[in-house]
Amino acid sequence: MTKKAILDLDTGIDDALALAYALGSPELEVIGVTCTYGNVLLETGAANNLALLELFGAPEVPVYLGEPHAVKRDGFEVLEISAFIHGANGIGEVALEKARAEAREGGVDFLIDSVREHGDDLVIIATGPLTNIAAAAAKDSAFADNAHIVIMGGALTVPGNVSPWAEANINQDPDAANDVFRAAADVTMIGLDVTLQTLLTTRHTAQWRELGTPAATALADMTDFYIKAYETTAPHLGGCGLHDPLAVGVAVDPSLVTLLPINLKVDVEGETRGRTIGDEVRLNDPVRTARAAVAVDVERFLSEFMTRVGRVAVGN
Amino acid sequence: MTKKAILDLDTGIDDALALAYALGSPELEVIGVTCTYGNVLLETGAANNLALLELFGAPEVPVYLGEPHAVKRDGFEVLEISAFIHGANGIGEVALEKARAEAREGGVDFLIDSVREHGDDLVIIATGPLTNIAAAAAKDSAFADNAHIVIMGGALTVPGNVSPWAEANINQDPDAANDVFRAAADVTMIGLDVTLQTLLTTRHTAQWRELGTPAATALADMTDFYIKAYETTAPHLGGCGLHDPLAVGVAVDPSLVTLLPINLKVDVEGETRGRTIGDEVRLNDPVRTARAAVAVDVERFLSEFMTRVGRVAVGN
Repeated sequence: MTKKAILDLDTGIDDALALAYALGSPELEVIGVTCTYGNVLLETGAANNLALLELFGAPEVPVYLGEPHAVKRDGFEVLEISAFIHGANGIGEVALEKARAEAREGGVDFLIDSVREHGDDLVIIATGPLTNIAAAAAKDSAFADNAHIVIMGGALTVPGNVSPWAEANINQDPDAANDVFRAAADVTMIGLDVTLQTLLTTRHTAQWRELGTPAATALADMTDFYIKAYETTAPHLGGCGLHDPLAVGVAVDPSLVTLLPINLKVDVEGETRGRTIGDEVRLNDPVRTARAAVAVDVERFLSEFMTRVGRVAVGN
Repeated sequence: MTKKAILDLDTGIDDALALAYALGSPELEVIGVTCTYGNVLLETGAANNLALLELFGAPEVPVYLGEPHAVKRDGFEVLEISAFIHGANGIGEVALEKARAEAREGGVDFLIDSVREHGDDLVIIATGPLTNIAAAAAKDSAFADNAHIVIMGGALTVPGNVSPWAEANINQDPDAANDVFRAAADVTMIGLDVTLQTLLTTRHTAQWRELGTPAATALADMTDFYIKAYETTAPHLGGCGLHDPLAVGVAVDPSLVTLLPINLKVDVEGETRGRTIGDEVRLNDPVRTARAAVAVDVERFLSEFMTRVGRVAVGN
């Protein structure tokens, strides 16, 4: 049975790969993309999403603008490290044709309305800061109670990537992430614990390049940019982490990872602000509102990734 | 088949319970106790071990002195919080008769020699700072390669108990713990992740008190002291954590917990000194030298605990 999906993206190269993965998955029907800031400005991400949807042959999917900055901030500027990893335009300096469609207002309301309309038939895959998700949960308790949310973010059993304790998405808005973990009834956390185990190399992108389609070439170009950045930032890995696509992969098939039921929080005070960790106060609560991925079937995921992204790459 | 066991203890109330659990487990033959500092001074722990072994009907088990302080320190003083939790004498102000036996020198060499002699037939259960274990590993690479070590220490998916990131045993000697995680080929980590889920209450200690034997009364008295301290330090738990006994429980039966294969390190620099966390550099190494317990069968462990400690309590 097809499941409806909304992707909440700060596109970003691995967000682009996540979008391709979702569109290439027959189990998912992407009913909309909501935009957040993070790897890029909100507007840049929206333009990227629109252009990518057209490139990937899905121009009918609506794109909604969400929140432009963190809950407790007045604005947002792209971090230098984000621009280094994703390029100034967010997609590795690949120049895509501007889309004909335009982004719509009301991303947060679209999230709320979609959960009200589709309930258990809908999964929300959030791969940026959790500002939109927290806003939806704060605005409508039915969203918090009923949304099924898979996030790429956090680091539970491994160090962070912007500090020894904080992962980039959570770090952009620790307060929002903490609110989501505390309020939402069903969150699956795909963190660095697993995404740094799923590595893509230029041997993989070369397969796309051979296809020669515009989509395949764009995917290969932006991903090579991303892999090159990883050679500088994390040379010990030998590839780039497939962060955001793994969240989509798990939304399609949770058996790709080992999930630890746990009540999570984010440190919002003190030295470790931005750290995802078990909530000691809810440690023995029989209800666990989150599941954190702590292991991943790397081979199977990479195979699924190449198959599904390949479908989008070859088709357009 | 019986497995030989050495307990490396900083006794400590829950160390006393761990010792009782081990002596009450027919699967284990306790061939020695090595002493470390931590909850108490080295000498206090040694005196407690000797007195408890006599009280528990096992005066023949030899007790060895280990290292008196952390690798990078010149001495050791008991922390105020340790004295509050375990009492000034380490066993909840319970006055035990002084043992006839005396502690022997050479705890580190006893660990090394025992691994050389017994190999895979031996498990070392370390429930204090890892100074002795690190010293053994540094002195003899055969120890690091061949010892099977179960530790109570660390906090992987939950906050620490002496700081938001550090657990008490690891915090006493982060350098030693880091050395053990990096050098030793087989470490099972029983951390706060699981030990704060296994709670003992005064309903349990009342069962011992009814037995009326000296051992049962001493166990009930010291554990009630420990439970009372927990009412102050962690009122949300509703009992005391069975930290050290769970390490013995897992040494007997690993199926009591869910073990995550992972390469671990301890932060020794920076703000988070003392934190146990996955080693990002060895994240994708197919060899995992540690297994961290991330879930526990609470009911089954408590039942085993009461049965095994009960055997020792009733027998003496």
